[in-house]
Amino acid sequence: MASTKLPTHIFHQFDKELEDIRTKVLSMGGLVEEHLAHVLDALSHGNAALAETIAQSDYKVNAFEVDIDEECTEILARRNPAAGDLRLVLAVTKIITDLERVGDEAEKIARIVASLIANENPKSYYIGVLAMGHHVRRMLHDALDAFARMDADAALAIAKEDREVDREQDATLRQLITYMMEDPRSITRVLNVILAVRAMERIGDHARNICEDVIYLVIGKDIRHISLEDAEKELRGIER
Amino acid sequence: MASTKLPTHIFHQFDKELEDIRTKVLSMGGLVEEHLAHVLDALSHGNAALAETIAQSDYKVNAFEVDIDEECTEILARRNPAAGDLRLVLAVTKIITDLERVGDEAEKIARIVASLIANENPKSYYIGVLAMGHHVRRMLHDALDAFARMDADAALAIAKEDREVDREQDATLRQLITYMMEDPRSITRVLNVILAVRAMERIGDHARNICEDVIYLVIGKDIRHISLEDAEKELRGIER
Repeated sequence: MASTKLPTHIFHQFDKELEDIRTKVLSMGGLVEEHLAHVLDALSHGNAALAETIAQSDYKVNAFEVDIDEECTEILARRNPAAGDLRLVLAVTKIITDLERVGDEAEKIARIVASLIANENPKSYYIGVLAMGHHVRRMLHDALDAFARMDADAALAIAKEDREVDREQDATLRQLITYMMEDPRSITRVLNVILAVRAMERIGDHARNICEDVIYLVIGKDIRHISLEDAEKELRGIER
Repeated sequence: MASTKLPTHIFHQFDKELEDIRTKVLSMGGLVEEHLAHVLDALSHGNAALAETIAQSDYKVNAFEVDIDEECTEILARRNPAAGDLRLVLAVTKIITDLERVGDEAEKIARIVASLIANENPKSYYIGVLAMGHHVRRMLHDALDAFARMDADAALAIAKEDREVDREQDATLRQLITYMMEDPRSITRVLNVILAVRAMERIGDHARNICEDVIYLVIGKDIRHISLEDAEKELRGIER
């Protein structure tokens, strides 16, 4: 007599697969975070060799993306996940895209940093971009932590920080423009710093995207295109 | 007597659903393309009102993304698609993310364009950015066309054009920097043109991403992180 119940070991295997992609996302995130931290170190200590090494290391991040993406496709094809399991797999495919793009931005910044160090610019050029860099690095770390703990409240709080990053960007750009105006010979070099500032801002955007995916994963609602205030109401409504 | 065959109308319904998400992706792409075309028109004819209108219209693009994404999740949950059908659904979820981000960049450019027009800059500032804009707009159009026709060869040819866009960007930036050096009072305004140039370059990147998704969809191989020359070999190998 056929039973609709599958043998328990199949469920265990499936749980293991889901746990495996979660772990890999966190490893991938840890690697991206490390790259970003090294780039910031390279800039603040004038270590061009370190910046070069990071610029060459992005392939490791890419390999993670391809590997996890394939695993997600496999799970969708073979397991037909439903509800929360399906949301996990879909959230993971989105999160790794954002992580891969953070890796791309870190690579770009690493190349800029190597050229900045070679040019022996005054350290004052880097104050704003370093502060932004430390901020977005922390956001990325906290976003991954919210994913690991399935914490939608934390994710929302981190997503809100993206606005602060935008304000930091405005202030930094203003300051950099004054350097260009004071000494037009500095224009090309300062422009490189500006491009690094823009890349930091984009990393903040990606951290925010990851937070939105975590909220989707936990509460099952797509909050990407509503205001964060409305997202907060959604969250409060569900918790009540 | 139970049969493993499902009634034909269920298959028809499924085909209709797949056709529906394809059509919606093309409509979303058409809208994004239109926004970009209007922004370019606004810049070349000095029409600030048109630029403002486009800056306010991005919510329509976002609505498409949310709608299509939900439909994809529904299909994954209820239909358990396999092979080519699964690849279509997964490629669509990636393509709409890129289209939504092209929409974001078009919105940013629209805001910059409105401020540039208000400043009455010399038209010579815009030559490079307009040329890049027309180029990436064509790339986006052709990428969507390759998706509609499931044409991996066309997709590869368009992905290759992204390198040309990068070269155009370098030349445009060089030219803009000379304007800043000649007249330091122009620095802030020229910097806005530079930010528009960067946004155009990112639109080229997104068009390339879409092409890579089309190739994955058609040949079932992830070519995102291999060189385009190796991707070409993959494609030739499969066609032989």
